[in-house]
Amino acid sequence: MSGRMRWGMVGGGRGSQVGVAHKVAACMDGLFEFSAGAADIDPAKSRADGIGLGLPEDRAYGTWREMLDAERQRSDRLDLVTVATPNATHFEIVRAFLEAGFNVLCEKPFTLDVAEAEELVCLARERKSICGVNFGFSGYPMVRQARAMANAGELGKVRVVVMEFAHGFHARSDDANNPRIRWRYDPKQAGNSAVLADAGIHALHMGGYIIGQSVAEVSADLASCVPGRLLEDDAALQVRFSDGTIGRLWTSAIAVGQMHGLSIRVFGEKGGLRWRQEEPNQIIWSPLDEPSRTLERGAGGLHPIAARGSRIPVGHPEGMLEAFANIYSDLHAAIGAHAAGQAGAAEDFPGFEAGLEMVRVVQAATTSSKNRGQWTSV
Amino acid sequence: MSGRMRWGMVGGGRGSQVGVAHKVAACMDGLFEFSAGAADIDPAKSRADGIGLGLPEDRAYGTWREMLDAERQRSDRLDLVTVATPNATHFEIVRAFLEAGFNVLCEKPFTLDVAEAEELVCLARERKSICGVNFGFSGYPMVRQARAMANAGELGKVRVVVMEFAHGFHARSDDANNPRIRWRYDPKQAGNSAVLADAGIHALHMGGYIIGQSVAEVSADLASCVPGRLLEDDAALQVRFSDGTIGRLWTSAIAVGQMHGLSIRVFGEKGGLRWRQEEPNQIIWSPLDEPSRTLERGAGGLHPIAARGSRIPVGHPEGMLEAFANIYSDLHAAIGAHAAGQAGAAEDFPGFEAGLEMVRVVQAATTSSKNRGQWTSV
Amino acid sequence: MSGRMRWGMVGGGRGSQVGVAHKVAACMDGLFEFSAGAADIDPAKSRADGIGLGLPEDRAYGTWREMLDAERQRSDRLDLVTVATPNATHFEIVRAFLEAGFNVLCEKPFTLDVAEAEELVCLARERKSICGVNFGFSGYPMVRQARAMANAGELGKVRVVVMEFAHGFHARSDDANNPRIRWRYDPKQAGNSAVLADAGIHALHMGGYIIGQSVAEVSADLASCVPGRLLEDDAALQVRFSDGTIGRLWTSAIAVGQMHGLSIRVFGEKGGLRWRQEEPNQIIWSPLDEPSRTLERGAGGLHPIAARGSRIPVGHPEGMLEAFANIYSDLHAAIGAHAAGQAGAAEDFPGFEAGLEMVRVVQAATTSSKNRGQWTSV
Amino acid sequence: MSGRMRWGMVGGGRGSQVGVAHKVAACMDGLFEFSAGAADIDPAKSRADGIGLGLPEDRAYGTWREMLDAERQRSDRLDLVTVATPNATHFEIVRAFLEAGFNVLCEKPFTLDVAEAEELVCLARERKSICGVNFGFSGYPMVRQARAMANAGELGKVRVVVMEFAHGFHARSDDANNPRIRWRYDPKQAGNSAVLADAGIHALHMGGYIIGQSVAEVSADLASCVPGRLLEDDAALQVRFSDGTIGRLWTSAIAVGQMHGLSIRVFGEKGGLRWRQEEPNQIIWSPLDEPSRTLERGAGGLHPIAARGSRIPVGHPEGMLEAFANIYSDLHAAIGAHAAGQAGAAEDFPGFEAGLEMVRVVQAATTSSKNRGQWTSV
Repeated sequence: MSGRMRWGMVGGGRGSQVGVAHKVAACMDGLFEFSAGAADIDPAKSRADGIGLGLPEDRAYGTWREMLDAERQRSDRLDLVTVATPNATHFEIVRAFLEAGFNVLCEKPFTLDVAEAEELVCLARERKSICGVNFGFSGYPMVRQARAMANAGELGKVRVVVMEFAHGFHARSDDANNPRIRWRYDPKQAGNSAVLADAGIHALHMGGYIIGQSVAEVSADLASCVPGRLLEDDAALQVRFSDGTIGRLWTSAIAVGQMHGLSIRVFGEKGGLRWRQEEPNQIIWSPLDEPSRTLERGAGGLHPIAARGSRIPVGHPEGMLEAFANIYSDLHAAIGAHAAGQAGAAEDFPGFEAGLEMVRVVQAATTSSKNRGQWTSV
Repeated sequence: MSGRMRWGMVGGGRGSQVGVAHKVAACMDGLFEFSAGAADIDPAKSRADGIGLGLPEDRAYGTWREMLDAERQRSDRLDLVTVATPNATHFEIVRAFLEAGFNVLCEKPFTLDVAEAEELVCLARERKSICGVNFGFSGYPMVRQARAMANAGELGKVRVVVMEFAHGFHARSDDANNPRIRWRYDPKQAGNSAVLADAGIHALHMGGYIIGQSVAEVSADLASCVPGRLLEDDAALQVRFSDGTIGRLWTSAIAVGQMHGLSIRVFGEKGGLRWRQEEPNQIIWSPLDEPSRTLERGAGGLHPIAARGSRIPVGHPEGMLEAFANIYSDLHAAIGAHAAGQAGAAEDFPGFEAGLEMVRVVQAATTSSKNRGQWTSV
Repeated sequence: MSGRMRWGMVGGGRGSQVGVAHKVAACMDGLFEFSAGAADIDPAKSRADGIGLGLPEDRAYGTWREMLDAERQRSDRLDLVTVATPNATHFEIVRAFLEAGFNVLCEKPFTLDVAEAEELVCLARERKSICGVNFGFSGYPMVRQARAMANAGELGKVRVVVMEFAHGFHARSDDANNPRIRWRYDPKQAGNSAVLADAGIHALHMGGYIIGQSVAEVSADLASCVPGRLLEDDAALQVRFSDGTIGRLWTSAIAVGQMHGLSIRVFGEKGGLRWRQEEPNQIIWSPLDEPSRTLERGAGGLHPIAARGSRIPVGHPEGMLEAFANIYSDLHAAIGAHAAGQAGAAEDFPGFEAGLEMVRVVQAATTSSKNRGQWTSV
Repeated sequence: MSGRMRWGMVGGGRGSQVGVAHKVAACMDGLFEFSAGAADIDPAKSRADGIGLGLPEDRAYGTWREMLDAERQRSDRLDLVTVATPNATHFEIVRAFLEAGFNVLCEKPFTLDVAEAEELVCLARERKSICGVNFGFSGYPMVRQARAMANAGELGKVRVVVMEFAHGFHARSDDANNPRIRWRYDPKQAGNSAVLADAGIHALHMGGYIIGQSVAEVSADLASCVPGRLLEDDAALQVRFSDGTIGRLWTSAIAVGQMHGLSIRVFGEKGGLRWRQEEPNQIIWSPLDEPSRTLERGAGGLHPIAARGSRIPVGHPEGMLEAFANIYSDLHAAIGAHAAGQAGAAEDFPGFEAGLEMVRVVQAATTSSKNRGQWTSV
């Protein structure tokens, strides 16, 4: 293991929910130090927020371009840059940092369209950068346990994956007046999809992550329930993964009473398993013809990747921040290995390819829905 | 309230799961007496099983035709006949009893095709018989509470209904050797659908029952996961109800680890609610912007129809047999009212029209799935 | 199996919750016919309620004495009499029916004092009557599964049993004005204990029932939370069973928000198990050092006594009425065996001895609590 | 808010579970920097582990005395020292750091006997140090919500508090051979109590913390279930708090199948509430005569102290590390206020007085249990 690395963030200033989460997660294990940032689009607020987040004055930048220019010239330059800005700006910022040779973790959705995402994937490969997209729920130890079980054949051939990410926080008819919500349903700021691109792709990514497949084809039904919305606030996708496995996704922003609402169920010929983000320390594992059993994070008998991602003993709850911290821990290891010239080990964090795949899925789903549910290749 | 009525059953002999359930349910409240039956297709077994179920010798018939011939001539003829035979025989038996002027409760699926179902609906109307299809889960008090809440506008305009009926009891690859399962995937015995017609329509019916709408259009994905099956063992339906409400249905027979697996969630502009058959005494009700609350069967403050369907105090669990008994109680009331020449009150039990609607849905879903997900009118 | 038997009930008229439950339970499987009753203390209401419950006019008696006098002389006399009257009247009525040679099922608490309970136990033995006390929750299939597991040694030596029966339905400060509640805290009508005798002994009985032990010693803390009450509305008992197993009981009537609130946990050297009346179709079974697993009523692999008590398939919920019906089914079998001169098989239903034991426990707990927690022999 | 402070830890080296938790928690919000430590009793390992935890070489000490001597002379001395060593060493170490003028957070149990605890409380007062005992579960936002609700009178007069902390991780009969467990049941290392002092007092503290009362009197039953143990592995305490509120505590180390097993239920005249450490982001709140509702961490409408302790949005789970971090955040605020000469605001973290109270409770419980359950003053 290499030593502590330098980490920076674009976005994530005061008022941003995800900024705090990234900062806590990146620094949780002492693997990264928060060294530089451009926290906001407003230069004065950007500097003030950066200092408020604990940055030294000279590295609390006013803009991401200022940050880029300064950091690229430092000998103690950043080892990793997180881009946590509004969706429509990801492409430009990520490209600029990639071109300057930085490793990048980008918030999801990766980009607003496929061409942009493809360009970034190419660029990352050319530069041999370590790059990730923050499908952060894949950092949960028990999600990784599910992946390891599927990969080890414990479920037998997987038949159906049922995915949900449905909350109720955009259900008010007057949300159009709420600036924190309105932009999400504005195609100019959000692209061609709202709840699918914002929430649904997390669940869909997790499905593929667990079974080790990508999405090949979709049949979609995108709907707007709140009058006046131009983008969908409720969607169902039928999916075929690359090996033919069936996927079923429901995602919603109007499911009043559901809180986080991210869950996954995987059914194979030898058994089925269930996981919910709201009780992330457990998997229910049901071997065929046997009673269901509860697997606990931190207990004995888990796969190494799940055991490795735990910080506290069995029975005590870990949460989302610890899951995100596992993504940062993965990135730290990958950056260290790369710096040491080692061939990359199997990478557990979602890369730019995963981001691209999900942008393609969103586009295919939009097309399918317009074509009255017709199956559409991704 | 009229007095105790005479009830008979075709099918339901030894080895039938549903026979015991009907008998307990019909007789639970003392509203019906089990008076006659033809319990099995084998005449000797039919008579023996009937006597075993408590019938007098002279009304434990060897065949349903024998039963029909004898009962139609009695002055103390049956007030209600339940048909709980294999699906493919429903049509012929129900028609015969209707033509002889009996009231009929038919197991689901109603018939194997739309034409048969339409004929029975017409016949029932002509004869002014009291007729039901046993979507028995609509008898649960808390399902009725949900219906009353939706009807009273407590949910506001309903936007999305999410329905599931997914179990794992047909997941073995060697189920083709199991005679109790094999017939379900044989088009000759089961018609054009397996798990959708067997399980999924229960959930779909419940969705329409609660929101007071019928299914107008579907986009379906029917799949066979276990090799060699000719009919689907996993299906997803996207639905538009008659008023445009969105429905999402997942049904499966290969969801290992799920037990009964029937649940429903209804999301409206004023709130959302959830109900699961495995914990049928509660609804989770989530008013918009307020904490979710647990409504309990038997507690104060429920709608009359829910209060009426309870037998024991709040906190004690009631189960499926009590739900079925509520259907029988409804039928008893309707038969009594009809006999008394009263105009029918609003009927809470599912009639033949509901059975027909679901046969149509199955057909439309089959068509849609063959047409690669194309939306199809019901 | 013998044929249908004749069953009668004292008490259980209109307004009684338990009357309906007994009637449905006794008749559910067709093993008993409701043949006679004295439903209320008011003779006119008693006759009317009896007829309302479905009794023939000549056996809908005005008083229990009238019923006793008439029934003892009939050739088709009752095979079983249930006594579901107010607690203070159990002794006199049960004694009279026993002396006349009837089999009796008595509601709990059995009697108000130990001397009465002892007298009834002696009398029942002398008359060789089949007698039970309605600790009806012991009829749940999964409670019986627990008992069978403990008895088969699957838990190893049992160390601790944790029992709860705590609800919140007597929590109002103005309950003294509510006639349905007031009598429960009046020593003249309720004896020396309220919530312990009403609810707690159900849980305590279940503990002993599962592990096959009786209560030897208690240390108790009885408290009245609602001002003005003369009897306890919250109590904790520490227990030693006859073999030294530790028991912990909490019972309450002021636990606002708890519904039924009956649960049991059993911890042995080889594993632990949990059961709750509100989800009665499951046991959570936790073998030492292995994941917890969910055992389902109706699934394969259960002990015969649990399998036998099921009426509907796995996954569908059964409830309290079905549990009570299992007690009646046991009584039917025992009465039949006795009539046939067969040596009694192991009896699964709680007998008068169980009733006596719990009356003794209540007395010992009262004494212990007055003596500031001192351990007291039962 | 004052700036980042310097924090050190005695104990917590490699192999310690609690060391990682303290480090992550103390540093989570950037309020403390891990500046010095003596991580192990073995000097070489102590230095190595300290460096491994990220300490600079010159402040990774070999022993706590070395650390004390060096740190007391530094101008950039530690602002807070956490003592996370074996229980029997707390007294000596805490006293030494207090005498040198440091602020101290001590792991629980505070000390092995009352006299030691009293001495430390006096010393802390004399020195006006900011001192805490790590009843870390009191840092959960929803525990604090419960405290604020009780304090605001929303529960009315509290009647009964039901507390549990029962796990199954010391249930093996051969645990006497396991060095990680053996010491816990050795009076020389663990004092006069095992599971009560290790686990039970967490739940008991939380009870008093929520209702704002201390424990006045106890009646206890301490038992050893695993043969050969000299200290209890299962205990029940009946409690009277200072205002007469009733407490019921069960704690166990042999409850196989229970994971963390910390929960609390509070019942008042206006309602009841429930919280479990394994689902720490919710409280179930049951107002009298109304449906139970689920209060969510991060949702609107919570008391400020609960809102303040949240880092991520409603629906996403937070865990134990975040709760501990709230304790550190409280300490940071108190140290800052003290340094600024401000009168201490109400302190939300448990102080040395709470530690002393729990040592007294353990002693009183031991006495009561020896005296056959006799109520004993604390």
